[in-house]
Amino acid sequence: MRSDIYIHHYELVSRFGLNSRSDRTRHKGVLIKIGDGVGCIHPWRELGDPSLEELIEDLRKGRFFRPLVRSAIKCAMVDGRARSQGVSVFDKVEVPRSHATIVGGSERIEEAVAAGFEVVKMKAGRRVAEEVELLNAMHERYPNLRWRLDFNNVLDGGGIRSFIKSLSDGLRAKIDFLEDPCEANDRDWAGIRSLYGIPLAVDRKVEEARGQFTYAIAKPALDDITPLCARAMIEGWELVFTSYMDHPIGQCYAAWCSGKVEKRFYGLEDPVAGLMTHGLFEPDAFIERMGDPSPQWQSPGGTGFGFDDLLEDVKWEKLK
Amino acid sequence: MRSDIYIHHYELVSRFGLNSRSDRTRHKGVLIKIGDGVGCIHPWRELGDPSLEELIEDLRKGRFFRPLVRSAIKCAMVDGRARSQGVSVFDKVEVPRSHATIVGGSERIEEAVAAGFEVVKMKAGRRVAEEVELLNAMHERYPNLRWRLDFNNVLDGGGIRSFIKSLSDGLRAKIDFLEDPCEANDRDWAGIRSLYGIPLAVDRKVEEARGQFTYAIAKPALDDITPLCARAMIEGWELVFTSYMDHPIGQCYAAWCSGKVEKRFYGLEDPVAGLMTHGLFEPDAFIERMGDPSPQWQSPGGTGFGFDDLLEDVKWEKLK
Repeated sequence: MRSDIYIHHYELVSRFGLNSRSDRTRHKGVLIKIGDGVGCIHPWRELGDPSLEELIEDLRKGRFFRPLVRSAIKCAMVDGRARSQGVSVFDKVEVPRSHATIVGGSERIEEAVAAGFEVVKMKAGRRVAEEVELLNAMHERYPNLRWRLDFNNVLDGGGIRSFIKSLSDGLRAKIDFLEDPCEANDRDWAGIRSLYGIPLAVDRKVEEARGQFTYAIAKPALDDITPLCARAMIEGWELVFTSYMDHPIGQCYAAWCSGKVEKRFYGLEDPVAGLMTHGLFEPDAFIERMGDPSPQWQSPGGTGFGFDDLLEDVKWEKLK
Repeated sequence: MRSDIYIHHYELVSRFGLNSRSDRTRHKGVLIKIGDGVGCIHPWRELGDPSLEELIEDLRKGRFFRPLVRSAIKCAMVDGRARSQGVSVFDKVEVPRSHATIVGGSERIEEAVAAGFEVVKMKAGRRVAEEVELLNAMHERYPNLRWRLDFNNVLDGGGIRSFIKSLSDGLRAKIDFLEDPCEANDRDWAGIRSLYGIPLAVDRKVEEARGQFTYAIAKPALDDITPLCARAMIEGWELVFTSYMDHPIGQCYAAWCSGKVEKRFYGLEDPVAGLMTHGLFEPDAFIERMGDPSPQWQSPGGTGFGFDDLLEDVKWEKLK
């Protein structure tokens, strides 16, 4: 009994560029389907991922070991198993609260506050003067709002220091962490761990970062979760689970992984996560099903990772 | 809160060489411990694994992605979690029956039959005349006993054909499969899939084998199990779960993995497994705790993967 692999090309359209390295607003990926199980592959070339074509070729050849393919396969297996049992994967899974992932200006932040978010994550470092002005102004308006600033390594050590210095003391006290503030080979990196008392977070380059951080970003779209949690347990990292700004199926997989991890066993503190990213994109049927972005995860319902009826209408292409 | 990694060097002593590529009888590995969770790393250099020293260095540096290290970490996390809950990992897990793994002659086979084994796995190909004689004689004595012959690629295409031809028809009908009968780049390999009606199995080189086999050997000590099961589902392989001829802790981990896999979901037939290998080694306290080898898996009891009292007496060395 053999199962075929099917794929479906999709495109997500964002209102703005979604990281500090690119202004791209069209984001291509594929849904994959094996049996009844669905996953997604959504590479970010500007962040070092292989091309979508290479990953599809891996899939075709049964090479399931590159991170994005491996995770899509694992997602599809979890999904298919739950669908075959007629249950939602989210039954009895407690997904942590999320920060708001913001691209754009004050309006988006106002929306986030109105939606109940207590923490906002913003890309930063590309238009420093504007960003500093916005942050200071928003902190005056919402003094309890907490911040996470993701620089994607675009500044150097001096740049990041002058960025932080230009923030008010009160605002600095409300920053959860600075993510990828500068390249770890920067001469300012050694011994940094926190910058003016603000903890650091590292996304992709945990090896190069040589332990100079408090938070590691855990991405179920890429990471082998159990070894990563073991590493966190050994190194004393805290893990911030985040989605990959990918298809809602991938977003659901990330949320499910973050809820399944037994944080108490690993000694993890379970900080606010970053699982709420579908609001970055123009609505489509899948995105609308996720509801309005809010700090508390909402299951899309249905079986497996949900979207049962929408998946019936997807046009699948047999891979081999 | 940081956890340290501890290791403990062990040596298993076998009565004979344990694969067709070596006569080595002393086999070194390490137990690892993180928190209360235990795993083992047991490389087989003659089968292409990295050295124990390299793997320990990976462990020290937090590089948990090479297969033997990754699996030891996963084992330790499963084990630690169950120990922290005071439960055995084997509660409600149904481990499949196993073949007897035999090295040596008729006496071992007699023992296996007496212990209730219905299937015997033997290394073959190094002393062809002796092996053929033994097999034909044993088949006459035990006509219902089934066989699995593992050649570790030591013969060429011609050699394996002449081996099979020298077996009686009745015996051939009792062979479950021929494992790694010859190198996949042998000119006799293409289109082979079965040899005189006997299915083939492939252990390490599933890529090179280009689908010319019915059974793939699944080794939880090396394999990322979910992607492997997905691959089997897609390619129509059957999986034979086997231990790694490693420490009883690793043997238990393999047994647990094989019992946890939802074979029905993956469309797997759940053939007799190869999880009973501790009998190949001179007894020590851990091996004795596993009981006499028998086709039906016996949990060693205790919490996690068991051996609670024995692990208390292990001398652990802090890794960093």
